Amino acid sequence: MAYSEIKISAYKPEGFLKSYTELVRKKMLPYQYRVMKDDEGCEKSGVFSNFINAAKVLKGEKAGPFYGMVFQDSDAGKWIEAVGYSLALSSDKQLEDKTDELIDLIANAQDKDGYLDTYFTISNKEKRWTNLLEAHELYCAGHLIEGACAYYEATGKDKLLSVVVKNALHIYDKFITEKKEGYPGHPEIELALLKLYRITGEEKFLELSKHFIDVRGADREYYKKEKESRNWSVWGNNAEDNYYQQSHAPVREQTDAVGHAVRAVYLYTAMADLSAETGDNSLYDACKRLWRSIVDKKLYITGGIGSVFQGESFSADYHLPSDTAYSETCAAIGLMFFAQRMLKNEVKGEYGDVMEQAFYNTVLSGIELTGKAFYYANPLEAVPGISGCTATHWHDKITRPGWHACACCPPNAARTISSIGKYAYGENNDTVFCHLYAAGEVNFSNGISLSCKTEYPYSADVDYKIKGNGILAVRIPHWSKNTTVYKNNSPISPEIKEGYAYIKASDNDEIRLCLDMTPRIVYPSEKLYNLSGKGAICKGPLVYCFEGVDNNGKVLNAFIDGNSSIEAEDFDIPLSTGTKRLKIKGYIRKTAEGLYSDKKPEIIPAELYAIPYFLWANRGENQMRVWMDIR
Amino acid sequence: MAYSEIKISAYKPEGFLKSYTELVRKKMLPYQYRVMKDDEGCEKSGVFSNFINAAKVLKGEKAGPFYGMVFQDSDAGKWIEAVGYSLALSSDKQLEDKTDELIDLIANAQDKDGYLDTYFTISNKEKRWTNLLEAHELYCAGHLIEGACAYYEATGKDKLLSVVVKNALHIYDKFITEKKEGYPGHPEIELALLKLYRITGEEKFLELSKHFIDVRGADREYYKKEKESRNWSVWGNNAEDNYYQQSHAPVREQTDAVGHAVRAVYLYTAMADLSAETGDNSLYDACKRLWRSIVDKKLYITGGIGSVFQGESFSADYHLPSDTAYSETCAAIGLMFFAQRMLKNEVKGEYGDVMEQAFYNTVLSGIELTGKAFYYANPLEAVPGISGCTATHWHDKITRPGWHACACCPPNAARTISSIGKYAYGENNDTVFCHLYAAGEVNFSNGISLSCKTEYPYSADVDYKIKGNGILAVRIPHWSKNTTVYKNNSPISPEIKEGYAYIKASDNDEIRLCLDMTPRIVYPSEKLYNLSGKGAICKGPLVYCFEGVDNNGKVLNAFIDGNSSIEAEDFDIPLSTGTKRLKIKGYIRKTAEGLYSDKKPEIIPAELYAIPYFLWANRGENQMRVWMDIR
Repeated sequence: MAYSEIKISAYKPEGFLKSYTELVRKKMLPYQYRVMKDDEGCEKSGVFSNFINAAKVLKGEKAGPFYGMVFQDSDAGKWIEAVGYSLALSSDKQLEDKTDELIDLIANAQDKDGYLDTYFTISNKEKRWTNLLEAHELYCAGHLIEGACAYYEATGKDKLLSVVVKNALHIYDKFITEKKEGYPGHPEIELALLKLYRITGEEKFLELSKHFIDVRGADREYYKKEKESRNWSVWGNNAEDNYYQQSHAPVREQTDAVGHAVRAVYLYTAMADLSAETGDNSLYDACKRLWRSIVDKKLYITGGIGSVFQGESFSADYHLPSDTAYSETCAAIGLMFFAQRMLKNEVKGEYGDVMEQAFYNTVLSGIELTGKAFYYANPLEAVPGISGCTATHWHDKITRPGWHACACCPPNAARTISSIGKYAYGENNDTVFCHLYAAGEVNFSNGISLSCKTEYPYSADVDYKIKGNGILAVRIPHWSKNTTVYKNNSPISPEIKEGYAYIKASDNDEIRLCLDMTPRIVYPSEKLYNLSGKGAICKGPLVYCFEGVDNNGKVLNAFIDGNSSIEAEDFDIPLSTGTKRLKIKGYIRKTAEGLYSDKKPEIIPAELYAIPYFLWANRGENQMRVWMDIR
Repeated sequence: MAYSEIKISAYKPEGFLKSYTELVRKKMLPYQYRVMKDDEGCEKSGVFSNFINAAKVLKGEKAGPFYGMVFQDSDAGKWIEAVGYSLALSSDKQLEDKTDELIDLIANAQDKDGYLDTYFTISNKEKRWTNLLEAHELYCAGHLIEGACAYYEATGKDKLLSVVVKNALHIYDKFITEKKEGYPGHPEIELALLKLYRITGEEKFLELSKHFIDVRGADREYYKKEKESRNWSVWGNNAEDNYYQQSHAPVREQTDAVGHAVRAVYLYTAMADLSAETGDNSLYDACKRLWRSIVDKKLYITGGIGSVFQGESFSADYHLPSDTAYSETCAAIGLMFFAQRMLKNEVKGEYGDVMEQAFYNTVLSGIELTGKAFYYANPLEAVPGISGCTATHWHDKITRPGWHACACCPPNAARTISSIGKYAYGENNDTVFCHLYAAGEVNFSNGISLSCKTEYPYSADVDYKIKGNGILAVRIPHWSKNTTVYKNNSPISPEIKEGYAYIKASDNDEIRLCLDMTPRIVYPSEKLYNLSGKGAICKGPLVYCFEGVDNNGKVLNAFIDGNSSIEAEDFDIPLSTGTKRLKIKGYIRKTAEGLYSDKKPEIIPAELYAIPYFLWANRGENQMRVWMDIR
């Protein structure tokens, strides 16, 4: 393993990241709690009532029906995980009490043998483990494990940890001792078991994680046989579409990122984590191939993946539509996971770059600044009257809905933001790793402490003050063409290896990183056939977009002057702070009447204004475009 | 009625149109005959076997199962119709014998009471008339009526006519005498009954057509009630999606072209035909609104309509994607029908313009030059590796398949091409109408004859020689900016009314029309958000496209110089004749390695070559693009 994760309480954020961790703790988590209790007026959730009803069934009492998606329990797991991380950053009695209440409900919903899944406990007991393809039992178990681990780490309370250990041992008995065939339709438990293994030291959890990874795709007929041997279905999933659930080949033989994007990156995350944990090079080689498939052929400039609604999945190579993009928030989150686990195998700038790209653009785009509305899909182009309004665009909404029938994304974003320290920092015996530029204080287990001051991502300077002696390994992003490093105000030339600067530092040293955040135009490969002639404006890690509200209503008929200078200026978007917008010379095309005309469009000069993509759709319904014609 | 259709034998084509009517008679119809008999190696059809099996069932013999779509019989109707028109142009004993053989099979498949539909006769007798929403009984009846009318007109043989008259009277009894509620899920019989009325003079058929039009959408709950009262379904269609089948409002109140595009234009065709027949202005007003909805907001430059695969339907206003276009061949054919019936209400250039636009671009694009492969969907952009290869693009194939499970388009194209005279010409007491520039001889019922010589659509001159005295009303297309008309070699200035020149002519007069066919760039409205900055090259009625095979393999990364002159040059495409290709100055963008780059693309000058859109995909798998960046 190249380095270890920091403890979740080791990093206390400041600045931009703190504004988001506080949004999670103060707004998103209380809101999501009310949603899960069905106390908000939005789309019903049923998470609480499901646990209550399952407990009643176990006690032989009269119970209400199961509500929602078959994987509804997972929302609780992700929410508790986010609470855990949040409590590690800041105590919050109310939130902790609410969580303990929910944990009691979960514990009561666990069957004597350790089984825990409300969909099956409420009314489908006889169907347990008969539909790994669709029924998400192992997926829900994984999310409860992740929640339990985080909550235990943050609070020391082990009630939920005991519950998930019992459930994990039950699953171990089923799949290892009893040798039940099969593997999860939706990967998740594999990566969760690795966390549980690290927390408990129980080797069985490592063994079970490795088992699910090893058997996946080895028997390509498994789901087909499973379907033939059961007489029920959740959605009628095609059991022979092995690509959808990444069971088309044993994982070590997989080469292309395919199928349901979240399933894919959750699987790749577990594979990379296991390879870092065990030094399994054949697994890491597969991860590297899958990484290249994503990064070279299937990655939106916003760090989004999974470009089509159908199957929420990866499309053909180089098929990255803007207006119909799926680019699910959860898939970008999963890509961060994958990148972070790749870093644990090898500290390489590209992994950190992509992790940052996904976070600052698509993950944050998933959240309205109110903390109470969320994107599932994150298009790169929005067209009022078409986006959200027609068959090809139902999934791409013009503003964020308050909740979703499939509510995977909101709590997923919450847990990712509140654990941002695990992505930002890492450590070794004598080295501390700074993958993201994250303002705040970090206390590493190796005795080193860092204080980081920066207005990143809006400003290019990052100041570290170190306590203790060691090496500071700081990522130099690919987009910074001209980076200078100062130690105690003198420029230095540290060793640069694979995109990281390795700086030897002693107690009280001050290290300053000056990145080159000149706004730039990024051009797409000619293989992206839909983007020929276009470019995107970026500044540092941020992709910018043009929104109607800043541009007299219209941006879809605009183009920009590729030789114009791009100026950054302070800009106020309500509920946001420190935002810079970019001003660039451009033009508006005014076309003749009628659908088609022989008349050349009139070209009208205009100052065009771009805002960071993640802030779009916070000011009503608007045209929006990332990729602009460049002339 | 503004004018009457010519008789189907009145026009004998020459030149370009003859090459297509001959392709239909010599290649397409024999090929489709073998397909319907399951004698070709492509997708199975089952049309013949279905009629044979239905006859067996009626005789109480052991019969095989029904094969194919519930509307499989309609292929026979359309094929016979195409044969009828073809025989009117040229005798063909073989084809006539084959048709008589098929007609015998159809006659044997008719039940004693007149009922005729193999799907229900073979094995679902008790379900007759219980599922108008999905089961296409009235649709199939309509196509057999159209086939019978054409075959009777061409050959005088009335066997099939008697069969369909008996069936139509059976339907009349059901819906008028017995007052069965409901109306066809897929309009078609309405327009067919009007043809049958004109041939037989039977007022019941006019009454029944009017009935189906009048009751449509009056009871918006009809399909819902129907679904509730039956216990079977063909596809599980949503009975409450009234927009899909244009039952959301009484037809006279409909304003926007919505839902399944073919259903829509077949309905509008019948409405316009009925209004021309009866002078029903409220119906014509609705037709005019629906026409505007299509032409102003939902029409591809290629004359295609119905832009999305989902529901094969119209999308939101101004949503006309290029690479995922549905633009079904049948929908463009239906738009020709609608335009032709609008012309029967009022002779206006726009109707003729759109009819021509749909024909020369999308209808002909539906057919490979071999006559043995067909497009269902007609995209305006093709991307090897993506088109036909991924979820959003399954329907947009990179080359034409030999047949389709739903085989509506191939015989539909055949019947439309072979009856092109009915679209090209019309007549009044003293006037002959030339809607299309159609080389050949025309003998009108009013005693006038025309001889037309032209190499249209490749050449701009059209020469008419008239026999008899009267008025020649010739459309002047909107794209001809500079049209001159000569009478006996002297320029004249005829009266121009609503886009038609009205030229008084006497016996032996020679009228020459010189259109302005200068190649031009057509610019899309800024409302077409996906086309901003683009333009299409057109020449006369033809939209051109750029195909890889003529441009070193790559056109998707090219752009054209909007100020460059466009030169036409003769060009040979195998199996095509008289083609001109266009040469235009342009550039290729060569981009840096990687998916994204800060490096500006290199711009490499290139001569670019465009061919008529309808000829694309006749030379293997290629990139193709209609809308090109214009700089």
